[in-house]
Amino acid sequence: MTTFVVVGGDAAGMSAASKAKRDDPDLDVVVFEKGEWVSYGACGLPYYIKGEIQALEELVSVTPEAFREERDIDLRTGHEVVDIDPDDRTVTARSDGETTVQPYDALLVATGSAAVEPPIEGLDLEGVYTLGSMSDGKELREFVARSRETSPTEQPDSGPACQYLENCSGPVGIVGGGYIGVEMAEALAENGFEVHLFQRGDRVLKGFSDATSEAVADHLDEQGVSVHLNAAAESIAGGGAVEAVVTADGRVPVEMVLLGTGVRPRTDLAEAAGIELGPTGAIATDAYRETNVEGVYAAGDCAEAEHVVTGDPAYVPLALTANRHGRAIGRTIAGTPTEGGAVAGTAAVKAFDVEAARTGVLDHGKAREAGFDPVTETIDANSRAGYYPEGGTVRVTLTADRESGRVLGGSLVSEYGEGAVHRSHALVGAVTEGVTVGELSNYDLAYAPPFNTTWDPILTAAKVLGGQL
Amino acid sequence: MTTFVVVGGDAAGMSAASKAKRDDPDLDVVVFEKGEWVSYGACGLPYYIKGEIQALEELVSVTPEAFREERDIDLRTGHEVVDIDPDDRTVTARSDGETTVQPYDALLVATGSAAVEPPIEGLDLEGVYTLGSMSDGKELREFVARSRETSPTEQPDSGPACQYLENCSGPVGIVGGGYIGVEMAEALAENGFEVHLFQRGDRVLKGFSDATSEAVADHLDEQGVSVHLNAAAESIAGGGAVEAVVTADGRVPVEMVLLGTGVRPRTDLAEAAGIELGPTGAIATDAYRETNVEGVYAAGDCAEAEHVVTGDPAYVPLALTANRHGRAIGRTIAGTPTEGGAVAGTAAVKAFDVEAARTGVLDHGKAREAGFDPVTETIDANSRAGYYPEGGTVRVTLTADRESGRVLGGSLVSEYGEGAVHRSHALVGAVTEGVTVGELSNYDLAYAPPFNTTWDPILTAAKVLGGQL
Repeated sequence: MTTFVVVGGDAAGMSAASKAKRDDPDLDVVVFEKGEWVSYGACGLPYYIKGEIQALEELVSVTPEAFREERDIDLRTGHEVVDIDPDDRTVTARSDGETTVQPYDALLVATGSAAVEPPIEGLDLEGVYTLGSMSDGKELREFVARSRETSPTEQPDSGPACQYLENCSGPVGIVGGGYIGVEMAEALAENGFEVHLFQRGDRVLKGFSDATSEAVADHLDEQGVSVHLNAAAESIAGGGAVEAVVTADGRVPVEMVLLGTGVRPRTDLAEAAGIELGPTGAIATDAYRETNVEGVYAAGDCAEAEHVVTGDPAYVPLALTANRHGRAIGRTIAGTPTEGGAVAGTAAVKAFDVEAARTGVLDHGKAREAGFDPVTETIDANSRAGYYPEGGTVRVTLTADRESGRVLGGSLVSEYGEGAVHRSHALVGAVTEGVTVGELSNYDLAYAPPFNTTWDPILTAAKVLGGQL
Repeated sequence: MTTFVVVGGDAAGMSAASKAKRDDPDLDVVVFEKGEWVSYGACGLPYYIKGEIQALEELVSVTPEAFREERDIDLRTGHEVVDIDPDDRTVTARSDGETTVQPYDALLVATGSAAVEPPIEGLDLEGVYTLGSMSDGKELREFVARSRETSPTEQPDSGPACQYLENCSGPVGIVGGGYIGVEMAEALAENGFEVHLFQRGDRVLKGFSDATSEAVADHLDEQGVSVHLNAAAESIAGGGAVEAVVTADGRVPVEMVLLGTGVRPRTDLAEAAGIELGPTGAIATDAYRETNVEGVYAAGDCAEAEHVVTGDPAYVPLALTANRHGRAIGRTIAGTPTEGGAVAGTAAVKAFDVEAARTGVLDHGKAREAGFDPVTETIDANSRAGYYPEGGTVRVTLTADRESGRVLGGSLVSEYGEGAVHRSHALVGAVTEGVTVGELSNYDLAYAPPFNTTWDPILTAAKVLGGQL
């Protein structure tokens, strides 16, 4: 009997385990997870903290019991893998002081990512949080609940942000203006906190287009979030507990700090076993997500993958890639060699009443490195027919290569519900298939007044950018 | 000086005229329009009739005065072109009994479409309407207004359909279950009419997938519309005014009938000039939308175009194609030869609280004719993360070729606002680019809990269909 061992029981690991076992029930599938939670939707944590989701368990898509009983997977929670021996084809796991040596025929390293902690003082103060795990989410929700209990005035369940309330909780600080920072700004502000968002660079959501970032920052500001740009946190001040975030501009008093400064791949275990990392610092894999060590695969937040536009390795630790690559590995292990597909760097975020998405290559420096001559245009267009009684604005940024006309990337922002995110799906296709702006502008997209203008904003953006090439 | 003459002042004609003049201000651009309205959004008429748009003028995107004064186009409304002479390169137009002979260097025939009238008795009765022109829209709105005035109980501005009201207006009949029929069912029911929809075939929206049609029909039923399937109207009965729609099943009393039985291309003028029609009965054109007669172009609802999937001529008289082809012709006339792009048969419709879209080839007979071996699967999936507090269901149908895996067509339906239509944009890309279901299922689509599940329903559909090939 063939044994497939998985290290790490979240999206990539459990997708691979489930698919392998389903496609080949004769496989022995063993999963080691050092924590107690498996297969959970970490992307839902901001909404749990916000209070829109009542129980942490709701974020679990399949329970450990279901994996064990219904899917016949030997899932061992509370087991930390401390060594991989590729020569012997074994892994060593520890649980409650006991050590298990588990042989494998095929191995998946799905060790995930860890929050990046900026090199500043004060991270050990009480009231400094990160948001990566379920327990992080639980702690943050408890913080919100405590603050609401002790708050002198009643807070609305949801509604206008703090600046419109008579009495705010907090103030609180968020360090980092990426998607976690932006989503948590909403979660905290909607709970009545005065929120300060500190961003090292000159705009939030730096992977998105400038125009998207500006729209989101303006909206955060409208919602009462204090957005501090070019404001790297130099330290967190306090005696025991957090008292302030210190930047070059001075000291902003806060009662809590959330670090949303990105994640790094957990690669220690792989490195110790001689598994090679790629240029991004994450585990290098081929199209089948196999590492340099035969029979050892890597997927999810610990691994890199090739970018659809540049062909170069990219580190994009997001949920869909983890699921997709995990599933592909499961198929491969079960006998059907399957490529997991490249990444496009696609991401989506909701911030209060706006939504935004991005895909592909928008940064001109990165585009030039990959041999392109990038040109970017941004348009604002009605999200529905101008005469239709509802609707808003969709702002579309497109970047293309001047010579070939190829669409390299796109970024969209609109009011929530006006379709920036779902429209981005078409741009993912365009960057993946190497479509030119001329071809894109000729797409026969659906039109009806309740959904768009005759020329959907995507088409208008392609037309306008086409005129600049 | 070069003279560009356009016959017909709606989407295709005015797009071509505007683009040609903008790109080459030295051109003489003359447009003949037999009516008084130009460049109007006929797609908005159901919402005008419904009462969501207050003035017919709101549907006009550019006024005749603006075309004349701002765009310097010689727009002659009230001028009907009665002859095209390709040998002399002239058109003859009549207005108020006077005749003008206008020479041209390049000519665009954009004569549009006319409502198809089924070959049944009673079409001349008072109370039989079609919906193609602005004046049709005006008449229907007046009908609604009269009924509301004489209605014995007050009608809500908008709200639940007739069956939930104490006293309905009507009953009224709609013959034809295409998108006009479905949109008008909403418009009339929301105005308090008891609505009967008669469909010759066994489902509404026959160009969409069976599964989409079923969802829409179920929703129409929930909203109180009586959907009569396999119920071809055999005649409209009445003495002077409409009294009933007669089908093989009997007689359904109605006070008004709207014919939504499709449109046919207006080709008389072109045919008389020796311009060839294609196999669909509409004017045949090449990739530049030029007809068999040199210098004579055709676009919009009077012309056919090649289908992106089959490569065969298709007749898809919709607004975007008219605009896009008109614009391409304008560029070509102004000196930059430009292809207008193929059609994918994409369409979108809102019906009360659901939205639906379709693209490509779904019909297995048509797919086989084009040399494919079609396989179809339909899935129902959450429109947002299952734990997210809002959301609904997206139903996705995909059809692919068994051997190549190529996506041939797609059809989606969801609650209004849950993204069926905007998601269809990605499927348009897939059918246009010849993407396989395997490739589509590996797309790195945007994901965040407020917008979709980790695997967007499109990806799930591609995975499921991929498993069937």
